[in-house]
Amino acid sequence: MPDSAGHLAVVGLGPGDPAYMCERARAALRAADTVIGYRAYTEQVTEFWPDAPVEPWPIGAEVERATEAVRRARAGERIAVVSSGDAGVYGMAGLVLDVLYDLGWDGQGDPELEVVPGITAALAAAARLGAPLGVDFAAVSLSDLLVPWETIERRLTAAAEGDLALAIYNPRSAGRPESLDRALRILRAHRPPLTPAALVHDVCRPGERVELASLGDLDPTAATMTTLVVVGCSTTRRRGRHLVTSRPYARRTGT
Amino acid sequence: MPDSAGHLAVVGLGPGDPAYMCERARAALRAADTVIGYRAYTEQVTEFWPDAPVEPWPIGAEVERATEAVRRARAGERIAVVSSGDAGVYGMAGLVLDVLYDLGWDGQGDPELEVVPGITAALAAAARLGAPLGVDFAAVSLSDLLVPWETIERRLTAAAEGDLALAIYNPRSAGRPESLDRALRILRAHRPPLTPAALVHDVCRPGERVELASLGDLDPTAATMTTLVVVGCSTTRRRGRHLVTSRPYARRTGT
Repeated sequence: MPDSAGHLAVVGLGPGDPAYMCERARAALRAADTVIGYRAYTEQVTEFWPDAPVEPWPIGAEVERATEAVRRARAGERIAVVSSGDAGVYGMAGLVLDVLYDLGWDGQGDPELEVVPGITAALAAAARLGAPLGVDFAAVSLSDLLVPWETIERRLTAAAEGDLALAIYNPRSAGRPESLDRALRILRAHRPPLTPAALVHDVCRPGERVELASLGDLDPTAATMTTLVVVGCSTTRRRGRHLVTSRPYARRTGT
Repeated sequence: MPDSAGHLAVVGLGPGDPAYMCERARAALRAADTVIGYRAYTEQVTEFWPDAPVEPWPIGAEVERATEAVRRARAGERIAVVSSGDAGVYGMAGLVLDVLYDLGWDGQGDPELEVVPGITAALAAAARLGAPLGVDFAAVSLSDLLVPWETIERRLTAAAEGDLALAIYNPRSAGRPESLDRALRILRAHRPPLTPAALVHDVCRPGERVELASLGDLDPTAATMTTLVVVGCSTTRRRGRHLVTSRPYARRTGT
């Protein structure tokens, strides 16, 4: 066993193109003995650092991956666990923390922990669209693998009733081809059909593509696993090829 | 007038420490003839690039700032407009787009436009706390300068009813000392007092400080203009000095 305490960094790689990763994330990767992650994410690392000490894992083995990362960090290694986007938003950070505390970790050293934030897909997609999330917004994933569909419906309903702009993650997959269609039906019950919306496919990745739509005519079958769907709120406007949710500066009279 | 078309980049600088800025943002700043922004944000630029061609503006002149940036980009200059965090979330991107389109811009060249996303305060604060925004969440600002308070209340109510974890921006200022207190009263009507919560002061800036609390005992007077408040949802757990909203991986039975 090494003398020094191990180190565990949970790192958000950003949406894809390494130009959208923060320097702190890059430093955490460079400092690691081993970079552990789902294969698609370790490939995101070797794209800009071909010799990175990556250990690619299959999809779906999140608990095993987190447990192995924690085990090795506790044994004194420097481990980085990577997620795309932000590691704390639909990423590995929560699971790694659960595994650490379940093993009696005291929240400080042995291993030392750092969570490095990243640009989550909603922000990257919003930048491509202009500023659809410019004021208040909600992020909701339609994946019902780990969250019951009733909870997802409740959250979509609340966002719609509360007039929050909406970033929809994981809108559709082969295993649940109807989920975006079901979500749109809920939103259409609360917002007018002309509400601006968009699909952003593969944001910051090869093949990136933006499709503007309205809530009424958005075709759910156009979405895939790698699409981020944006639905505006009552103050979102389509302007040319952009979507803008701006605050009404003209109203401004105070300080 | 220069021959080439002007260029306008709206750039999110991230939460403060330049280590949390993405490389694309850095490149956009380096390529600019002039970096325009509220003084506190141009100082965020000169902190890591002392000779940056910054033009600091006073607070509150957003429309004038956007208009001047657009005017100069249309005259052929390369202009970067900066916001802290993400320029598209409570930042300048929407306003710049509104000014551009109001002047008859066609959405493409003259000037060319790029919105560069950044790590917004909610993500930076969440990383410091662990993973409180690990599943679905909402971001709501309590500033009622440009959004009516009734709209803010409606959004807080919706987030609470929809069991969304919540990131609260601009929780309190000298001009509205009661706003966080009013927001907490709404949330307390919907969520139990033991719901994990936290105040993150000056995230990624000198003096950064985390205060863990519960929804029931969170002291609203501890918040300032530079505090980000997080309130968990029903599945958020306090674990040691962290907050975790994780998906229940144990439930997982499918593919």
